Amino acid sequence: MLQSERPKAAQRAANVAIVGATGAVGVELIGCLERRGFPTASLRLLASERSAGRRIGGHVVEAVSMDAFAGVDVAFFSAGAGVSRAYAPLAAAQGALVVDNSSAFRMDPNVALVVPEVNAADLPAGPGIVANPNCVTAVSVMALGPLRALGGIVRVIGATYQSASGAGAAAMDELTASTAAQLAGEAFAPKVLPHPYAFNLFSHNAAVDPETGYNGEEEKVMAEHRKILGLPDLRISFTCVRVPVLRAHSMALSVEFDRPVSPSAAREILAEAPGVRLVDDRAANHFPMPVEASGEDDVLVGRIRQDLSDPEGKTLALFLSGDQLLRGAALNAVLIAERLWR
Amino acid sequence: MLQSERPKAAQRAANVAIVGATGAVGVELIGCLERRGFPTASLRLLASERSAGRRIGGHVVEAVSMDAFAGVDVAFFSAGAGVSRAYAPLAAAQGALVVDNSSAFRMDPNVALVVPEVNAADLPAGPGIVANPNCVTAVSVMALGPLRALGGIVRVIGATYQSASGAGAAAMDELTASTAAQLAGEAFAPKVLPHPYAFNLFSHNAAVDPETGYNGEEEKVMAEHRKILGLPDLRISFTCVRVPVLRAHSMALSVEFDRPVSPSAAREILAEAPGVRLVDDRAANHFPMPVEASGEDDVLVGRIRQDLSDPEGKTLALFLSGDQLLRGAALNAVLIAERLWR
Repeated sequence: MLQSERPKAAQRAANVAIVGATGAVGVELIGCLERRGFPTASLRLLASERSAGRRIGGHVVEAVSMDAFAGVDVAFFSAGAGVSRAYAPLAAAQGALVVDNSSAFRMDPNVALVVPEVNAADLPAGPGIVANPNCVTAVSVMALGPLRALGGIVRVIGATYQSASGAGAAAMDELTASTAAQLAGEAFAPKVLPHPYAFNLFSHNAAVDPETGYNGEEEKVMAEHRKILGLPDLRISFTCVRVPVLRAHSMALSVEFDRPVSPSAAREILAEAPGVRLVDDRAANHFPMPVEASGEDDVLVGRIRQDLSDPEGKTLALFLSGDQLLRGAALNAVLIAERLWR
Repeated sequence: MLQSERPKAAQRAANVAIVGATGAVGVELIGCLERRGFPTASLRLLASERSAGRRIGGHVVEAVSMDAFAGVDVAFFSAGAGVSRAYAPLAAAQGALVVDNSSAFRMDPNVALVVPEVNAADLPAGPGIVANPNCVTAVSVMALGPLRALGGIVRVIGATYQSASGAGAAAMDELTASTAAQLAGEAFAPKVLPHPYAFNLFSHNAAVDPETGYNGEEEKVMAEHRKILGLPDLRISFTCVRVPVLRAHSMALSVEFDRPVSPSAAREILAEAPGVRLVDDRAANHFPMPVEASGEDDVLVGRIRQDLSDPEGKTLALFLSGDQLLRGAALNAVLIAERLWR
């Protein structure tokens, strides 16, 4: 509140770089910066050698290199964990505020992992790397964070309905191309994803831990919930599933508290929560859907009810949909940058 | 085992009627009877006035009426609860073994609700109505039934990924037509389902209880689990979601037992369970998928792991896919009829 009352003129414009500018998230980052009026003095778009020379909105894409971060104030990384590990520390060492969308530093105890509406207090005071969470985590904690006002969260069981966009622009193309092929009665060999995607769904394609049976996506989501919510002992289990939806992630959550909780109290809290929109119309059977979450900044929350498998009344069931590219990635990264860049 | 060793000649062939023969399940019923060699002396296909006169595989469809069940030995009903309420008792009164696929009688304390692999002992000795469960229940209990060998099941939390076929052939057509329209950039107004279906998902369209917030599909599934598993006090919660998949239902289950259980013991039990196929290859990331369950009699079960949200080790997580039209409806009905018709 106070910050937005400060005169805009007091804020110096930043030299901004986006690494991974040609990817699905990179494109949304450019859009979010513009739409939200992030004070940008210059915008440097960086990507792999392969994409260098492409033009995006008047900017020529440059190949990322050791020299690319000179004079950069704010750097967004969204080109995978390998690129982040190679270049993000370098950018930070040169004084940039780095917001990293990859998994490279999320669980580093020296790096803040932040959803600003939930744990802005974890943000560092000076330059360095801040991690943006996995897209499932980013959507989920938008509801779970505010619900801590009801009582301590002790257990979460989640099942996800994840969209193609989480696997990048090429996966979105594969979903539409394979679906068109099936409708035309033509064969289609998957190239990006390991399984047929048209009118199909499959367990998330991250590698599965041979011991626990959880896949890498689930492990990330579970660990990141604990870190962002500040609940190191949270009992949590997720099942992550890829569904044939283009760009919004949905999830069914069962959330247990340390005391009895009421759905109506949860609804009141979520109705006031920033970045959350209640879509919970039982009479009209209108609840969160990917088509309505797509392109929206807010996470849609509904199906809020007492979980009847808990006779003690401590558990709530919820259903969420949130835009994977915005709340799950680009928007959250820009919200972090807004808080850091003062 | 013993039964299949009985000489076929000892079994009188039955006069069979199918009510709802032109629907998605009706067509599968005809196929299942043929494929499994059900001893059929005559086959009467019944449907609404509107469908009367249509020909299916050499049979002329007749309008269902009060007189349609004379001489019928086995009647399958799959034309909705209203038709079943009107005609099933009549057919039974005339001596037919009735297998009802609707929800009309499932929770009637005088009617057995049966998945033969799980609770064949509940089948009556003589003529009358036997209910076929909801398609989610039918798939789920194929795994839960055998797992009772590990210990008592005390709690189930489920999230479903339900296919178009559960809403009938018209919904399957709407999924493909609306998807084709979206790929062509054309508008499409949903007629069968209440929400856009192309590359979208939505909470199951059954009416929502204004008090509990559970929808009618979830209420059915929860009550039917208790009845079939013989666990009247089972603590159970489901979230039922329609996904853009054509004909197999999937679900993520968290199943709590009354004692610590091991995933490897569960895997051994399910590997031997009739009607179940283990698809649980962690190294290859190959787990149950609708495309592989479609057209299959077996329910695919995988992602079998300790649910890490339960530190006592009493909870297993599972992921299932089963053909909604076969295991979820037609196949189960024919399996019931095979047991009844001796």
